[in-house]
Amino acid sequence: MTTLLFDEDRSAEIVAASFAGTPDPRLREVMTSLVTHLHAFVKDVRLTPGEWEAGIRFLTETGQMCDETRQEFILLSDTLGVSMLVESLANSAVSTQGDRLTEATVEGPFHVVASPSRELGADLNVAGEPGEPCVVTGRVVDASGVPVPGAKVDVWQANAAGFYDVQQPDEMGLGDLRGLFTTDADGSYWFRTIVPAHYPIPADGPVGRMLRQTGRHEWRPAHIHVEVSAPGLRRVTTHVFVAGSPYLESDTVFGVKESLIRDFVEVDDEAEAAAYGVANPFRTVEFVVALDAETTP
Amino acid sequence: MTTLLFDEDRSAEIVAASFAGTPDPRLREVMTSLVTHLHAFVKDVRLTPGEWEAGIRFLTETGQMCDETRQEFILLSDTLGVSMLVESLANSAVSTQGDRLTEATVEGPFHVVASPSRELGADLNVAGEPGEPCVVTGRVVDASGVPVPGAKVDVWQANAAGFYDVQQPDEMGLGDLRGLFTTDADGSYWFRTIVPAHYPIPADGPVGRMLRQTGRHEWRPAHIHVEVSAPGLRRVTTHVFVAGSPYLESDTVFGVKESLIRDFVEVDDEAEAAAYGVANPFRTVEFVVALDAETTP
Repeated sequence: MTTLLFDEDRSAEIVAASFAGTPDPRLREVMTSLVTHLHAFVKDVRLTPGEWEAGIRFLTETGQMCDETRQEFILLSDTLGVSMLVESLANSAVSTQGDRLTEATVEGPFHVVASPSRELGADLNVAGEPGEPCVVTGRVVDASGVPVPGAKVDVWQANAAGFYDVQQPDEMGLGDLRGLFTTDADGSYWFRTIVPAHYPIPADGPVGRMLRQTGRHEWRPAHIHVEVSAPGLRRVTTHVFVAGSPYLESDTVFGVKESLIRDFVEVDDEAEAAAYGVANPFRTVEFVVALDAETTP
Repeated sequence: MTTLLFDEDRSAEIVAASFAGTPDPRLREVMTSLVTHLHAFVKDVRLTPGEWEAGIRFLTETGQMCDETRQEFILLSDTLGVSMLVESLANSAVSTQGDRLTEATVEGPFHVVASPSRELGADLNVAGEPGEPCVVTGRVVDASGVPVPGAKVDVWQANAAGFYDVQQPDEMGLGDLRGLFTTDADGSYWFRTIVPAHYPIPADGPVGRMLRQTGRHEWRPAHIHVEVSAPGLRRVTTHVFVAGSPYLESDTVFGVKESLIRDFVEVDDEAEAAAYGVANPFRTVEFVVALDAETTP
């Protein structure tokens, strides 16, 4: 048997050797790579015992900040750009046939309660929050543009003050500004809501402290979360970003891709407002979601 | 201002750019390196969303396993060889003059209660635990071998069943098998104890699950922890390992260095036993600790 007596120069190699007997080859690959990069980081910066201690404390506090409605490790992953990278690797912007697909972005930490099923056209703003009325229309299509009936469109968003229901459950009630829709026969969906505001990520924990210590801000540009799935197609987790929102170019979770920014067009038309069942004036935005075929793993 | 719109190929660069305004240059260096290696890891293995989720869950559970007497993140760092690497980087095996120093090893997760101050010669085995009596003698010297009077020698160890006081506080009482000694005029120290046993690290948490999933064992070879400090000298955190102990070549925290293994010699001599105040037969071990001069940071 290989000896695992420690040696500074060969440290990553020695620790990787301890994972040589991992039954699952993929887990072995992941652990070996993780150890290699982790040791390279520690050596590159010559991490001191004091810095290591600060790191242990930071990770511990991050774990202890988590509960049913707060996921501080996802926030950490988001603010280090890791969530965005994982989503991007899993979701190509073009299909195998070269067709343009809807790009993915982070799920974020607020998808912690299930969105209530709603009829097409329903108003997400159940609590009657103040805000600019908004009509969202769209369609789910496959890579070649064929509409997908029966697709699930899960949406969630902040209110005009920048808060999600789970952040103020007493004022809003859980499920407010969330909805799970099913596309109709021609693949389309629509719903009513209010225009979301840009907002800070929860910054009262270790991640917020990290942002302040590194001179970063804690803001995300205004967006609506959209997660679409349909049998035989690849699920996409994405956002529609509000064009002109502050922080579009410096999203603290690196979630913005050019292709996901949309004009939320102002409409001033009493008849159209009445037809949609919203107050006049209002905003409209269209968001077509193109999904790739599911590849067999 | 630089745009931070996400791009998969340049992801590490983009996230690193967000840390460009970090006021403390050292923190900026650490965060930049961390992000670079973290993104390289994610790309190397093409981490999937499911694996990322498992990682988030693992880190969250690791944080939530921690309390006053359990530090699961230190266990994780230990079992990935990171703690050992940090200690080794901070503590060279040779002084700037080329003299041989006592090598460092991990502090481990059991130094969670302060060791009670004890007189030289005191018995660490306050609770009268069963085990082979053992006399530990030694000396603290500087790099050129000059004895260091008044050095603090902090020791802690498991009992003959492999448990620390904090793991069974009702049976042992906190402070049992721990002691803080001060070297006398000729730099020497001594105390009585029992021979420690090899033991498993706490394996009922996420780290234990990781070890089982990767086919690793959870054992550490028998050892006594020793942490020595003195004014003007560099503190060293180390162990004396018991020669012949199982797992010396496969310590699950990679803590073993050849130079730290000592024979715990069996002595069968009634007169000597009586002189030390221990039952006959007993074991003896000598551990000389050589500390480097403190370098001005």
